Amino acid sequence: MRFPLTTAFLLGWLLAWSPALLAEKPNIVLIFTDDMGYGDLGTYGHPTIASPHLDRLAAEGMKLTQFYVASSVCTPSRAALLTGRYPIRSGMARVLIPKSSGGLPDSEVTMAEVLREAGYATMCVGKWHLGARREQLPLNHGFDRYFGIPYSNDMSPWAQPDNPTFKGDPPHPLIRDFEVTNPDHEPDQTQLTRQYTDESIGFIRDQVRQNKPFFLYLAHAMPHVPLFASKEFKGRSRRGLYGDTIEEIDASCGEILKALKELGIERNTLVMFTSDNGPWLGKGLDGGSSGPFKEGKVSTWEGGFRVPFIARWPGMIPAGVTTTAFATAMDLLPTFARLAGGRLPRDRELDGVDVGSVLFQNEPGREALMYYYFVDEVWAVRKGPWKLHLKTVSPAEIAGWGNWPVTEHNPPLLFNVETDPGEGFNVAADHPRIVSELKALISEHVASVKPGVPQK
Amino acid sequence: MRFPLTTAFLLGWLLAWSPALLAEKPNIVLIFTDDMGYGDLGTYGHPTIASPHLDRLAAEGMKLTQFYVASSVCTPSRAALLTGRYPIRSGMARVLIPKSSGGLPDSEVTMAEVLREAGYATMCVGKWHLGARREQLPLNHGFDRYFGIPYSNDMSPWAQPDNPTFKGDPPHPLIRDFEVTNPDHEPDQTQLTRQYTDESIGFIRDQVRQNKPFFLYLAHAMPHVPLFASKEFKGRSRRGLYGDTIEEIDASCGEILKALKELGIERNTLVMFTSDNGPWLGKGLDGGSSGPFKEGKVSTWEGGFRVPFIARWPGMIPAGVTTTAFATAMDLLPTFARLAGGRLPRDRELDGVDVGSVLFQNEPGREALMYYYFVDEVWAVRKGPWKLHLKTVSPAEIAGWGNWPVTEHNPPLLFNVETDPGEGFNVAADHPRIVSELKALISEHVASVKPGVPQK
Repeated sequence: MRFPLTTAFLLGWLLAWSPALLAEKPNIVLIFTDDMGYGDLGTYGHPTIASPHLDRLAAEGMKLTQFYVASSVCTPSRAALLTGRYPIRSGMARVLIPKSSGGLPDSEVTMAEVLREAGYATMCVGKWHLGARREQLPLNHGFDRYFGIPYSNDMSPWAQPDNPTFKGDPPHPLIRDFEVTNPDHEPDQTQLTRQYTDESIGFIRDQVRQNKPFFLYLAHAMPHVPLFASKEFKGRSRRGLYGDTIEEIDASCGEILKALKELGIERNTLVMFTSDNGPWLGKGLDGGSSGPFKEGKVSTWEGGFRVPFIARWPGMIPAGVTTTAFATAMDLLPTFARLAGGRLPRDRELDGVDVGSVLFQNEPGREALMYYYFVDEVWAVRKGPWKLHLKTVSPAEIAGWGNWPVTEHNPPLLFNVETDPGEGFNVAADHPRIVSELKALISEHVASVKPGVPQK
Repeated sequence: MRFPLTTAFLLGWLLAWSPALLAEKPNIVLIFTDDMGYGDLGTYGHPTIASPHLDRLAAEGMKLTQFYVASSVCTPSRAALLTGRYPIRSGMARVLIPKSSGGLPDSEVTMAEVLREAGYATMCVGKWHLGARREQLPLNHGFDRYFGIPYSNDMSPWAQPDNPTFKGDPPHPLIRDFEVTNPDHEPDQTQLTRQYTDESIGFIRDQVRQNKPFFLYLAHAMPHVPLFASKEFKGRSRRGLYGDTIEEIDASCGEILKALKELGIERNTLVMFTSDNGPWLGKGLDGGSSGPFKEGKVSTWEGGFRVPFIARWPGMIPAGVTTTAFATAMDLLPTFARLAGGRLPRDRELDGVDVGSVLFQNEPGREALMYYYFVDEVWAVRKGPWKLHLKTVSPAEIAGWGNWPVTEHNPPLLFNVETDPGEGFNVAADHPRIVSELKALISEHVASVKPGVPQK
């Protein structure tokens, strides 16, 4: 996408993007929501959810319209974000439950580890979902501090009394570092967004006091079902309780931005906002909106994988720009590493690429993305504007979890997802060479990937 | 929707909105597109159509997310816009074709007449579609000048060689005032947006020279099918030819905004941008996107009636505000009349209400809207967040025109279109009193309306 650049500006970014020339290491704030859809913010087209703070973040920064996660369900999406790798490589392709013994292997290198090694203070606030045993918690994966519930907010016998999966499990543990703060009662989920915000701002203040660059990973519990909003926000949105939770998250972002400003570090802080996967459409009005895209969470249609992404860094990222550059959550680790002067692991495959050029130089993004269905299979691929589907599921109409009927497409479906964002018009018959090329791309990828030990 | 207002600002608007206190009459520029959907601009969530000028217009002004037209097809929507009345009152409920003898009755009072009487120079550029006989053209309805094609750009034997409806009709007449400029050949539709832009800017320049307030009604031919873009724009958009036409319109808006600035009248000009109805989904990728809404053109679902609406007036309309206030195209005539110090016709029913309070004071909008299906029947009503459907059609899957199967809903369907913008969850059974109230509202309206002589 085009936007006017003065030569001076462009030169400024080119120079600035050489990390040696960065005056100091930027602080990094990454805000993550749970099951929020592409269409659930004002700036992404929602008609009745008010998101003034996030709209302002976009107006002061850059909004990406072709940003992807690496999986349309929680655990694998988060594993990919933190490691910069397809979740199959770490064995984190399945959704973990409280009874799971698996978790992110120690051998994986997270963005927190890369940043801590580069001198950053690091904190994870909110949902972890990469293993709930003591040795799997954030403090063993590069974070100095942790405060949050280590898995989804619907994974306890209180949240789902009739679901045998959670029978006998403890209340949702609200953990500080390693310690469960509520061993014998459910946490008050109406207070989670409030508490997560306070913890985040507290961490930021502490680092400013110590003059240390920091990385904050704030992974909200909302708007994953069951939905909860505080008294202040309940009933406030025109979009019902779902909208209330987004408006509370929006207000939380506003508080964090205000703190950055008051602390005088606004211009040295890269703030990003995105979601872990598309909306859980099977939950009806308790689920969100994919906007113009088909389907949502679980599926490999665009509604499952395409999420909002807003990035602001005053002076470094141009203000008010919307870009169609193609980027993914896996690209953040290499991008952060370069910004921080950190070292990337050299002994393994990284699937993420440094997308600083997208954010700072408005260049095109990555080349291709594999869409993994969350039981380890590649079901689709995107390269350039083209997307090929080998199999699909349509979970939107199904309230429960699992047993979604799978449709195999032979011949595969082909869509131009830039011309046809809604994936409504299969053009495979018109483009046999592209179909062959994309099929080959999947085969090569699958043949080259060494799966990790499956964690479950 | 909430946004921060300083008391000083608020007082400023309150005072300013008393027209006697307006230093001078504002110029009014109303830009109208044909069949563009709610979801077809960047600022309304389209992922691949670049609309930087309209995005900027929204950032510098106000974006409405609950703005409606009075019909989901061309002629009635335009009749309602220009008269401030449901099209049934003027008899303009059907889509006119070149062979039609009907047109907007002389007895109707248009916004151009109101504004001209108040001292405005007036021009209509583009699609008229309210009668193509000499005595029905814009110059007989309050416009000083006209340049454009008086009906849809698919209504000639050249555009539809196999359609008997247009057999023997002339080429699309490109009319200046009363004169057909191209009696023996089709106009080059790739040049229409360019020509319309030049005519518009020429008119504006002339009025500035004469120091006269002006009203420009620019009704683009695009993105109605058949789609055409100039050489400069063809192939430029990632969204294909449909996107090219929108990007060319966006650039046209940019040129007009630039001219207003260069002429020094930016701060005294109210600029508005909207569409005549939802996208023609039956045209596949040659049709647009309703964004999060169901269905499009022809239907009484939200996708047919809900359109983008952006308004900018520096110093008078707050910048960067998104509002959920409920307003319609019919409300513009009374709003303009008040701004211009013009006289509203007192001898007839007006369905529009002055929505200056929405634009200048951020207050809630109108109370109710009837959704007329275009053959004169009220099929749905919205009041507050509630919408009741008595009948529906689903034309999205049908490429041709007419014979859409009608579904009667008995009991009626009820949706909360703020909580459920996609009209997916019928809640009639939970709200019998609201169902009764809305049914009664339709009955009262229908009983009170005196239909005009049907024009066809």
